[in-house]
Amino acid sequence: MNPQELLERLRWRYATKKFDPARKLDAETWATLEQTLLLSPSSYGLQPWKFLVIDDRALREALLPLTWNQRQVVDASHYVVLAARKGIEPRDVERWIGRLAEVRGAPRESLAGYEKAMTSFVVKPPAHVVLDDWTARQAYIALGFAMESAALLGVDTCAMEGLEPAKYDALLGLEGRGYRTICALALGYRAADDRNATNPKARFALGDVVEHL
Amino acid sequence: MNPQELLERLRWRYATKKFDPARKLDAETWATLEQTLLLSPSSYGLQPWKFLVIDDRALREALLPLTWNQRQVVDASHYVVLAARKGIEPRDVERWIGRLAEVRGAPRESLAGYEKAMTSFVVKPPAHVVLDDWTARQAYIALGFAMESAALLGVDTCAMEGLEPAKYDALLGLEGRGYRTICALALGYRAADDRNATNPKARFALGDVVEHL
Repeated sequence: MNPQELLERLRWRYATKKFDPARKLDAETWATLEQTLLLSPSSYGLQPWKFLVIDDRALREALLPLTWNQRQVVDASHYVVLAARKGIEPRDVERWIGRLAEVRGAPRESLAGYEKAMTSFVVKPPAHVVLDDWTARQAYIALGFAMESAALLGVDTCAMEGLEPAKYDALLGLEGRGYRTICALALGYRAADDRNATNPKARFALGDVVEHL
Repeated sequence: MNPQELLERLRWRYATKKFDPARKLDAETWATLEQTLLLSPSSYGLQPWKFLVIDDRALREALLPLTWNQRQVVDASHYVVLAARKGIEPRDVERWIGRLAEVRGAPRESLAGYEKAMTSFVVKPPAHVVLDDWTARQAYIALGFAMESAALLGVDTCAMEGLEPAKYDALLGLEGRGYRTICALALGYRAADDRNATNPKARFALGDVVEHL
């Protein structure tokens, strides 16, 4: 991809406050976005997450008051809740190693060193690492991937952090499954009259954000 | 961009363990990647981050032992440390509102409602939000943007979490500046003999990661 096209897409995107409720993503575009979520990188490749796509209208309506009544929850074409693993443990590592052996067509034993490194990390993480924070951070990589991918496909998004995670967990049945709500992403198409769409792109000056040492 | 091209780029990328130390990014490609970092979205648009590009060879060598001696630190063409704001406060909101008023050519007063909402969040965040964790999470959006953007431009990356943040902070002069090291990203071109490059792309099955409700 050419650099100018990439930057043009990233300047086109913005936090969409008002979606056009009548415009839906077509099936191919949505399937592609699910693949970009799946392909998001994560530490050790562990993918300590679940992405819950809320298709059910009644469930969307029920999430609305748990999301500061932000209309994107119900007006966007698609609404995805990003949940992260809570209490990650050696079993998660085993599950990943099993999958990896399957995809590579390799014996599990050939992955023993990798498994051991990951298991050590999970059992006794470095002093500065809090595992539940660490899995939550991974979910933000996927959030970034989904937002950038959407922009590349001409799809608008709004990341949703203003929500009540514990109430989401209860309503979505995450309680007791070992996952917890981290944030959500609304995807669709901007309404013709979304005032945010016409604001000039604003960032700090490059030199205030990027420093060379 | 066409969906198949996008997925092709995301399947092409992988965590590069061995970079070709002789291959450097050209100036335009690097400038584009700095712009994609700058354009990364963040909550409220606050950009609670600094991206430190480590150009100095001696500094890279000094970071190596603080990064589990992973050679990407010194072999990659570029190495960026992603730092997040520590102790975010109303002054950060004021700085952002000042910038926004400047970019929009609007009086500060027209942004009073937005400023008030952000200031309240920073002064008294919701019970489940720990501000330093929240700013750290934002840095992972930028990490995702940089990794995906790099892949689109044919640039290899390796996200680096295996590092000693407090020692990075001391060495990079972040101590006392109100920022802290969150993670790093090595960017460049894979070595011809990087064994990781030939592994098939592995993820859990789509249905194990994406659920419809």
